[in-house]
Amino acid sequence: MYRGLKLKPPLFEIGLKGYIYGNQALELAKEADRISEKYDIGIIFDPQYVDIPLIARETRNIFVFSQHMDSVEVGRGLGSVLPEALKNAGAVGTLLNHAERRITLTEISKAIKRADEVGLATLVCADSPEEAAAVAQLKPNMILAEPPDLIGSSSAVGKEFIEKTMALVKSIDPEIIVFNSAGIKTAEDVRNVIMLGAEATGSTSGILKAKDPYSVMEEMVKALKEGWLEIHPE
Amino acid sequence: MYRGLKLKPPLFEIGLKGYIYGNQALELAKEADRISEKYDIGIIFDPQYVDIPLIARETRNIFVFSQHMDSVEVGRGLGSVLPEALKNAGAVGTLLNHAERRITLTEISKAIKRADEVGLATLVCADSPEEAAAVAQLKPNMILAEPPDLIGSSSAVGKEFIEKTMALVKSIDPEIIVFNSAGIKTAEDVRNVIMLGAEATGSTSGILKAKDPYSVMEEMVKALKEGWLEIHPE
Amino acid sequence: MYRGLKLKPPLFEIGLKGYIYGNQALELAKEADRISEKYDIGIIFDPQYVDIPLIARETRNIFVFSQHMDSVEVGRGLGSVLPEALKNAGAVGTLLNHAERRITLTEISKAIKRADEVGLATLVCADSPEEAAAVAQLKPNMILAEPPDLIGSSSAVGKEFIEKTMALVKSIDPEIIVFNSAGIKTAEDVRNVIMLGAEATGSTSGILKAKDPYSVMEEMVKALKEGWLEIHPE
Amino acid sequence: MYRGLKLKPPLFEIGLKGYIYGNQALELAKEADRISEKYDIGIIFDPQYVDIPLIARETRNIFVFSQHMDSVEVGRGLGSVLPEALKNAGAVGTLLNHAERRITLTEISKAIKRADEVGLATLVCADSPEEAAAVAQLKPNMILAEPPDLIGSSSAVGKEFIEKTMALVKSIDPEIIVFNSAGIKTAEDVRNVIMLGAEATGSTSGILKAKDPYSVMEEMVKALKEGWLEIHPE
Repeated sequence: MYRGLKLKPPLFEIGLKGYIYGNQALELAKEADRISEKYDIGIIFDPQYVDIPLIARETRNIFVFSQHMDSVEVGRGLGSVLPEALKNAGAVGTLLNHAERRITLTEISKAIKRADEVGLATLVCADSPEEAAAVAQLKPNMILAEPPDLIGSSSAVGKEFIEKTMALVKSIDPEIIVFNSAGIKTAEDVRNVIMLGAEATGSTSGILKAKDPYSVMEEMVKALKEGWLEIHPE
Repeated sequence: MYRGLKLKPPLFEIGLKGYIYGNQALELAKEADRISEKYDIGIIFDPQYVDIPLIARETRNIFVFSQHMDSVEVGRGLGSVLPEALKNAGAVGTLLNHAERRITLTEISKAIKRADEVGLATLVCADSPEEAAAVAQLKPNMILAEPPDLIGSSSAVGKEFIEKTMALVKSIDPEIIVFNSAGIKTAEDVRNVIMLGAEATGSTSGILKAKDPYSVMEEMVKALKEGWLEIHPE
Repeated sequence: MYRGLKLKPPLFEIGLKGYIYGNQALELAKEADRISEKYDIGIIFDPQYVDIPLIARETRNIFVFSQHMDSVEVGRGLGSVLPEALKNAGAVGTLLNHAERRITLTEISKAIKRADEVGLATLVCADSPEEAAAVAQLKPNMILAEPPDLIGSSSAVGKEFIEKTMALVKSIDPEIIVFNSAGIKTAEDVRNVIMLGAEATGSTSGILKAKDPYSVMEEMVKALKEGWLEIHPE
Repeated sequence: MYRGLKLKPPLFEIGLKGYIYGNQALELAKEADRISEKYDIGIIFDPQYVDIPLIARETRNIFVFSQHMDSVEVGRGLGSVLPEALKNAGAVGTLLNHAERRITLTEISKAIKRADEVGLATLVCADSPEEAAAVAQLKPNMILAEPPDLIGSSSAVGKEFIEKTMALVKSIDPEIIVFNSAGIKTAEDVRNVIMLGAEATGSTSGILKAKDPYSVMEEMVKALKEGWLEIHPE
């Protein structure tokens, strides 16, 4: 667990995957940056590798993450995503083990160690509460648990899944922040997931396939904040 | 085979792998750019993904390639290297199927098609003359044949391997440019490979682990040119 | 190309995948054995690994193939399918690179070499005519070309696909036998594929999900023979 | 965790990998069977897939395991190792995630669930104490923790590694049996590992590359029993 980055719930994640890139990604990043500041909500934003440097330079509030990273050391490993190169490019963290980019247990373990070493936060994906518990033993900063059959669908993740994930992960390490995503298409879905106990959530296709991605993104972040304050009154 | 990029032998390839990144990679790129112009030799330069945009912007002569690319379409595919994003970032081509990043036959085939579609040249690696012939059927721009046990070693690839690769690939498609690398540590190795009939070659550790990478790189490119002119007098 | 096994078109392949195993697989194998003899048609039958020894012992006419094989040598490689162990268990060949079990180009190349060495025939899958041509350069005994989106579907592979595959493969090596499958659900589909020029075909779900697999299998083999004799009158 | 198989420490595992197969594997299995009975020590014996049926039939005491298993359901999945087929062939369990056959975290999780469903015990490999703890969350029957750089070497796993693995795994689930292997070449190595607190161990190359594998195997099992009784007097 890398401690050099201030990450506190509630958080929101926008995984661009390969939906947008270049200028379109930069513009969305700037808007996310404005929204992050306006609502004082941490937003994890993960663009294509080649877009990391410019987006990192042009934003101040969002957390620019890589979509994947390899555990390779400086040296060989053609085609790999080198931790040091990511850090140098301005990334502050990385996703690992997403359903569209599975890695072995050993690689998850090594990549978390490399991220800690280099100074990058880790958000590791898991399919089930049990997998989330397994990942928790490897001490990432955050875990994103989502039932894979709901990714990209219109059914949001449910109560039992969220509660079980929270209970298992927190009993292993209460510092690990738990995301629950999958099927988050509207601000209402965001609110529901938070009301069910998640500390963070996110959306890809819900935002990127929307007619007006900027307003959907803002509504979601607003719903995240309101839902959070409702159950965690200050 | 993408026809929008002028690639003519002899060529030289510098695969950075994960040896250097950031400013160090940029400085080497600028030097490669100067050498490419000075000797009028095409240099393929493949840095870490995140370093592509800046290097592409700051150089005029070298061919900035990606170390790998996926065949994904715009949309899903978290963690993938999207062809459109590479092109937009300034890359003009991509390596595929290096011994340190093997892909399936189907993925090689699809990635070449995607590269053609998006406008990126392809340099596909093969372990043996027979594999080079197999790859030639898929119409890449270039094939890099190297015996994997010699990669990073100090024994350079031999005469029979080079001749067989040339004969097989050229009989399938004479337009495909053939690289022979592996074990290229000195300017003398470069010269030998060219004298044995290769159209192009390259080096990673020979340059990056040298005391003075700039002068080794320049000597290699100079040897490439001299060897080439000796057997292809104008 | 292993020359120790007499394989001549037309051929039929039944890939059990994981649909049936144990006694049910043995009974289907015995029936395939009877049909192979009755119609004098070579049938390639590929059961689960653990079912190979008994099926090989209990049949005389069918060609018992493995569904996959690794290129490992005798020694390390826990979890791999060792060529020597397959041969010893009675298998006479192996499938390689099926759409449900893709391998790298290098692994295809090495596995064919190992099969030749150990004495096993190879049937290598390809997605497209171009991939089939690529595979042909590696000298397998047989190539199974099928468009992956048709596998398990009810649309059979078409005329252009078959003709292009045949032309490309035969121009590289006329000894390689070409299968065209995908979407073969009925005896009529078998006949059509043969009339379109394929030398061999096969079916999995068309047989295994049928109400009466035995009679569907027999009808298919009969249609294969009749179609073949119609266009190759003796 | 499958409860239908009586597994109690101390246990010994012989992973044949691809060192031997066929008759040679059967003869070693019979000898292991005799030794298992003589010393009343459970021996896990994992041969090539194709050798499972005969070895399972010809032995009474050893636990015949598969070297790997996929989480596929009955149906598609050409080339996969189907759980139901293994069970039917006489296997009583399976190894998963060995250093030579890594699988994703998700696949480990699913394969354990499938094994429980079908009635097969699971022995899951891990590289480090932390990975062993991660695996423990997924409730396998047994965990085999070994530092990968020691596999096949002549340096046996050390005290700190064993103690940490035991402490972590047992705090999660005391029923999970912990193996510590890697670098076990002699009966003395076996004894040492047990004296350091492991509940089980094993050897591949220590036995299979020995001049007299049978006597090395017997000495190791004898040392296992004596070491165990010394620290767990009845």
